[in-house]
Amino acid sequence: MYPDILNKTIDSFKKLEGIGEKTAERLALSIIEMNQEDVNNLSTSINDLKNNIVRCKTCGYITDKEICPICSNKFRNDSIICVVEDYKSVANFEKTGNYDGKYHVLNGVISPIDGITPDELNIDSLVKRIDEIKGDKEVIIALKPSIEGETTTLYLKKILDGHNVKITRLSYGIPAGVELDYLDSITLDRALKDRKDI
Amino acid sequence: MYPDILNKTIDSFKKLEGIGEKTAERLALSIIEMNQEDVNNLSTSINDLKNNIVRCKTCGYITDKEICPICSNKFRNDSIICVVEDYKSVANFEKTGNYDGKYHVLNGVISPIDGITPDELNIDSLVKRIDEIKGDKEVIIALKPSIEGETTTLYLKKILDGHNVKITRLSYGIPAGVELDYLDSITLDRALKDRKDI
Repeated sequence: MYPDILNKTIDSFKKLEGIGEKTAERLALSIIEMNQEDVNNLSTSINDLKNNIVRCKTCGYITDKEICPICSNKFRNDSIICVVEDYKSVANFEKTGNYDGKYHVLNGVISPIDGITPDELNIDSLVKRIDEIKGDKEVIIALKPSIEGETTTLYLKKILDGHNVKITRLSYGIPAGVELDYLDSITLDRALKDRKDI
Repeated sequence: MYPDILNKTIDSFKKLEGIGEKTAERLALSIIEMNQEDVNNLSTSINDLKNNIVRCKTCGYITDKEICPICSNKFRNDSIICVVEDYKSVANFEKTGNYDGKYHVLNGVISPIDGITPDELNIDSLVKRIDEIKGDKEVIIALKPSIEGETTTLYLKKILDGHNVKITRLSYGIPAGVELDYLDSITLDRALKDRKDI
């Protein structure tokens, strides 16, 4: 019913994360309505992104240079490293605007079920970075609160013990804006255990 | 926080219909994860679509040839023309799989508020097409049930009267799968007026 040329674009849009048939159709149709310049920019930027994005040699975050802007920022605190699962977490931490340390992207978490072992993660480079920091240093382990995340946290703690570094993790607790009445019992239990003096 | 190259792609995705900041971000990030071939296909098909899509010289539907596949299909009924507002309607009718006539895309409806007058719509070419059909012929006016749609329907009826053509419109009534309890009163009123013998 659609010209082949349109069906091809619909199929291509369906390859994007979270895009189903209906949305792919809407997006492809909107290409027809867009002005020529915007279409060129979209097409070019997609290619440029895929071809030029690399991982920062220091921390593993995405960048189009050798070292990412976070690692090369001299105003940031060099002695705190926040260890995250993937580069998307970095972006999310940056949105808080309240963290001025550095990051280290593990590129996954230990998961025996998925066959992900510690030597597949960027752990060696983390240890090396920590050893190079002079004076007081801290590693904040910021992994997801799942079995895999916690296994990785414990593994990192074991590996880093003896490297003269303070090791912390994110606090567990109540997320912003929820009704306590409907909060799951695991979160509530953790919020109780991690309670703070006021 | 993101490399410029990624921000550019996010901005480009935001130009697509119904795509906000969050979704644009997700789509751009998924470009990084996609395989090279899929990215190339997406980028190329977007350009190809924009550069090669034209309007069918007969009916105004989108096509990459001079005449669209619907108009050039010899197995379809030439003596029934369904008049629609835009090419998206054609695609929607085709999905029903139950209409084997042809279409005519007006490219809008009469709307004094938006400054759209009858001479900006593909009405002359519709009259010409109808005059060229030999024998019994029918025009189904399938425009939206708004003031503009109904104005255009009445205008077309006036223009086509005397051209020896049966003029019909879509029936009004209850849409599929709704609860009558919550149906708006205008729809209910129309469904009552258009009631059919059983």
